[in-house]
Amino acid sequence: MKSPILSYLEYLHAEGKQNTAGAPAAYIPELGRVSPELFGISLATADGYTYEVGDARHPFTIQSISKPFSYGIALMDQGFDAVDRKVDVEPSGEAFNEISLTAGSGRPRNPMINAGAIVSTSLVLPEAAGRYERIRAAYSGFAGRDLSLSQEVFESEQSSGYRNLALGYLLRSFGIIEEDPSPIVEDYFKQCSLEVTCHDLSIMAATLANNGVNPISGERLLTDDVVERVLSVMGTSGMYDGAGNWITHVGMPAKSGVGGGIIAVLPGQIGVAVFSPPLDEHGNSVRGVEVCRRLSQDLQMHFVRAGRTGRSAVRCSYSVADSPSGSRRSEESRAVFNQHGGIARVYELAGDLLFSGAESVVRAVSDLEAEVRYVVLDLLRVDEVSEVAKKMIAELHSRLALEDRELLLVDPEGKLGDVDLPPELPGARVFGSRQDAIEWCEAKILTAFGTSFESPEHARIFESSLFEGLDHADALDLRSMMLERVFDDGERVLGPDESFPGVFFVVQGQVISSGTASNGRRLRLTSVNPGATFGESALIGARAGGVELTAVGRLETLFLPATAIAALEEMNKDLAIKLWRALTRGGYESLDRRLQEVAVRLGN
Amino acid sequence: MKSPILSYLEYLHAEGKQNTAGAPAAYIPELGRVSPELFGISLATADGYTYEVGDARHPFTIQSISKPFSYGIALMDQGFDAVDRKVDVEPSGEAFNEISLTAGSGRPRNPMINAGAIVSTSLVLPEAAGRYERIRAAYSGFAGRDLSLSQEVFESEQSSGYRNLALGYLLRSFGIIEEDPSPIVEDYFKQCSLEVTCHDLSIMAATLANNGVNPISGERLLTDDVVERVLSVMGTSGMYDGAGNWITHVGMPAKSGVGGGIIAVLPGQIGVAVFSPPLDEHGNSVRGVEVCRRLSQDLQMHFVRAGRTGRSAVRCSYSVADSPSGSRRSEESRAVFNQHGGIARVYELAGDLLFSGAESVVRAVSDLEAEVRYVVLDLLRVDEVSEVAKKMIAELHSRLALEDRELLLVDPEGKLGDVDLPPELPGARVFGSRQDAIEWCEAKILTAFGTSFESPEHARIFESSLFEGLDHADALDLRSMMLERVFDDGERVLGPDESFPGVFFVVQGQVISSGTASNGRRLRLTSVNPGATFGESALIGARAGGVELTAVGRLETLFLPATAIAALEEMNKDLAIKLWRALTRGGYESLDRRLQEVAVRLGN
Repeated sequence: MKSPILSYLEYLHAEGKQNTAGAPAAYIPELGRVSPELFGISLATADGYTYEVGDARHPFTIQSISKPFSYGIALMDQGFDAVDRKVDVEPSGEAFNEISLTAGSGRPRNPMINAGAIVSTSLVLPEAAGRYERIRAAYSGFAGRDLSLSQEVFESEQSSGYRNLALGYLLRSFGIIEEDPSPIVEDYFKQCSLEVTCHDLSIMAATLANNGVNPISGERLLTDDVVERVLSVMGTSGMYDGAGNWITHVGMPAKSGVGGGIIAVLPGQIGVAVFSPPLDEHGNSVRGVEVCRRLSQDLQMHFVRAGRTGRSAVRCSYSVADSPSGSRRSEESRAVFNQHGGIARVYELAGDLLFSGAESVVRAVSDLEAEVRYVVLDLLRVDEVSEVAKKMIAELHSRLALEDRELLLVDPEGKLGDVDLPPELPGARVFGSRQDAIEWCEAKILTAFGTSFESPEHARIFESSLFEGLDHADALDLRSMMLERVFDDGERVLGPDESFPGVFFVVQGQVISSGTASNGRRLRLTSVNPGATFGESALIGARAGGVELTAVGRLETLFLPATAIAALEEMNKDLAIKLWRALTRGGYESLDRRLQEVAVRLGN
Repeated sequence: MKSPILSYLEYLHAEGKQNTAGAPAAYIPELGRVSPELFGISLATADGYTYEVGDARHPFTIQSISKPFSYGIALMDQGFDAVDRKVDVEPSGEAFNEISLTAGSGRPRNPMINAGAIVSTSLVLPEAAGRYERIRAAYSGFAGRDLSLSQEVFESEQSSGYRNLALGYLLRSFGIIEEDPSPIVEDYFKQCSLEVTCHDLSIMAATLANNGVNPISGERLLTDDVVERVLSVMGTSGMYDGAGNWITHVGMPAKSGVGGGIIAVLPGQIGVAVFSPPLDEHGNSVRGVEVCRRLSQDLQMHFVRAGRTGRSAVRCSYSVADSPSGSRRSEESRAVFNQHGGIARVYELAGDLLFSGAESVVRAVSDLEAEVRYVVLDLLRVDEVSEVAKKMIAELHSRLALEDRELLLVDPEGKLGDVDLPPELPGARVFGSRQDAIEWCEAKILTAFGTSFESPEHARIFESSLFEGLDHADALDLRSMMLERVFDDGERVLGPDESFPGVFFVVQGQVISSGTASNGRRLRLTSVNPGATFGESALIGARAGGVELTAVGRLETLFLPATAIAALEEMNKDLAIKLWRALTRGGYESLDRRLQEVAVRLGN
């Protein structure tokens, strides 16, 4: 199934294409030659999954997007105190190439303006192969692939970079740079001329989102402290535009470059990268800014919103073959579930469903095996569902419907609320409990694949496990001792304190069992369906929180009373032994299934 | 148990007391008269739980901390466009009483400076009782109690507030205020003179953290959008100090007032309030700023850190009485667990353990019943554990030890790592699975409260449920057919495909059963202990993922072979019937317990 997130990005991309404002940077010829049509978006989750549209693999030079990364490397190499003595963290509110040095000290206002960025580069500890090579290698670690230089752009920058060279000498004059500034500025030009794609940048951003660890390679590039600092400075000074405006309307730390790239980071969750060369008057990609603004708004990615979400909302997932409802069924039905239970799949969700959580759900469900027809989302343990998550689940519902799959919701409290669906599409089926939803799936599976006796047909007593191994005479004997007993919907079949009245065989209808939790709450435990037996649990007599059995719908049973069993124990001991043996086997079969189910669901 | 969070706040408070820098505001006499010694801290979680130390209930005037709240009310009343036309969102970098109006339009730079705040007050829609009454009622909603005016401070402000009156007239001259500014400025003075305590302010801050819903009353005061805006503006302009510095070193949207109060908000998680009258040169509480800085650093409350956490880490909690290990035990043992299982309590955790998650754990465990001796924290489903969470759990361990309680960890992957403990305290006991930890607790419970035969003593076969209801002759008969069978540690007792070899009774030692999940992973299912039986499950024969039984330690059993049962079925049918009946009963007893346990753990 195509991911609704990818569709959303495609929609953003198509819409963004309409906007032809701005022009590519022209201060060096190489940048002016790039096609203004190029437009890519890549979104990477903090665990390294990427969604890409458009020209997301087209290379361009990183330019000023390099600034936060070199700042981070400088902090790793020199520590906070040494770096802070040389570059401040205050937004300047000025253009990227402004000479914004603090009066007196000459300390650049922040590392996101050119003066501050040249200082960062100067503070990177060179390795044997030189300072630039250290920077290139570190950036490659962020991107998860080996990056290289655009020689043309570098030469173009180098041959016209008088202003940056002037900044270098000015910084030298204040003693902020303590060596010859010329090779430092050259390394800075090389750093800015490294080629990346949207895809690369989204992984670099996701590495910041993931606390400094590249989510693909697992390599730690920055410590938590350094990531905190880098994202803080990006938050106030990353966009040349007013800091207040960006934080207010986007709320993600971000950085743009005159190459047309822009990255934005939702800490702990998402790295975003956009590439579109035409720039606005601040030097930011026009479409890039608009995409970030839309993502923040549509996907609720503002940092204020994101504070309450975790990363993954899917607690566990399994098919009905792995973990059927636990209802007591005929053996034939169980065999059908074993073989065909894979067509229904359950996802138990937990926590808050904001964008990230919903993304993890949509991603899990996008990856369905071909056979799956029913998708159950259990929202019982979900705390809060954001508007964007509601829309994503509605979109999931529509897409599943297109593939002839059906979405089922366990949502007794109506957390999903009302969502807009296409008029031709009925709302998703909602169940009050997971048990109900799974039983509904089981009924569908039996209808599709069952060969004989479960609902709506009558169950045949002679096919019951109770009769297994009996010869014809014994079977008729046993059947003759059974009484027809019918119960109305909701009628109590067996009370919690009742002692063993005998064994019931379900011909038609259903029985549910319920118990009492230690907090006094009534709990539904399991159900018994046509072809299965019940009543044996009364053998163990009264107990706290004892099990009560209730009919669901009209219930038809065949009842073998305890008195009949007692009579049998006198008159036909061999048959009585066979009966008890069958009952023992039935009990352990149920127990074994229960153990397996719990193990599947909980990884006990 | 005393909460380690409270202890930490007490430590911060004691440390902060040492700092006597700054002086209370003196621009009006009323503020100058307050004691500089007063010092309170209150921390409220987004679900409304508060931790308070010092003078957290001492009233003082809210002053500029009112600004974000009136801005929020104005946004609710007038909408974004109308408010944005009158006040911008850019940090001014200037002092609180600066006349920072945009050239030309006269629009104040942001709503956190006095000019902008007066505009916010002017935009609050008056109700019948007037504009001030509307503000007072709304603030009371944020605080969750009825707030009132300090008449003295109000009169003092009113009689010396020429500068604010000048601002009012200036705003009137630009048409930003469209009516007589004098009553608006009066209402603004009243707003600033409302009396609050640290406790009130922390609830007000927690209401912002909780997306605009007061966590105590449940009342929604602001929409999500408005909260996002208010916190964004607090983030860049809340502290008169440089915006970059605050975001970098604290990273929580915050607002201070000259009354000595300060609030900080960790979105989705925490509201902090500090009260200490001495101010620094920016007009911020000296101790207040320091406490916020320390909280951010020590508790990792910077917004960049907080992005990956959810609110509650405790997935479920239950005692061993509610949900024993599921091991098969003698009836006597089970009775002991029912009565005394409350002394061991299990907490299953999930998600990331940062401050908020760890706080929810510590809070849950701080509230233990007196009888609890063993606390099991199951970290199997925890993704990441922050340094602060490690320290908090170590602290929890020390505190539990002081109360003669023991902390047990289920942490096979060593997520908690090494934490510093007092030298006299041994590390917490670590288990590879929850099952192991619970069984360890059960052994402790049996040692303390068991009267007879479970480990280390031998189980007595005649007390087994297998022998229930047998007369002396029958019992001796049955016992005579049982063989002693001994297994070594790790020896396979029963393979997954083996058909029914008979019934084993455990005299000493333990058997564990394991199955295979659909993904091929081997799962431990349950254990069988002295006094209980096993082997019946082989009655159901070979199946996929079938159960295998293995000895743990030296295992001594009494074995009733299937051949002996068959012989009994020929020679002593009555006894055979009783035996099968007992086995059926045993099976349903196990099934019933299993159903209850799962219901307790999962609220099935």
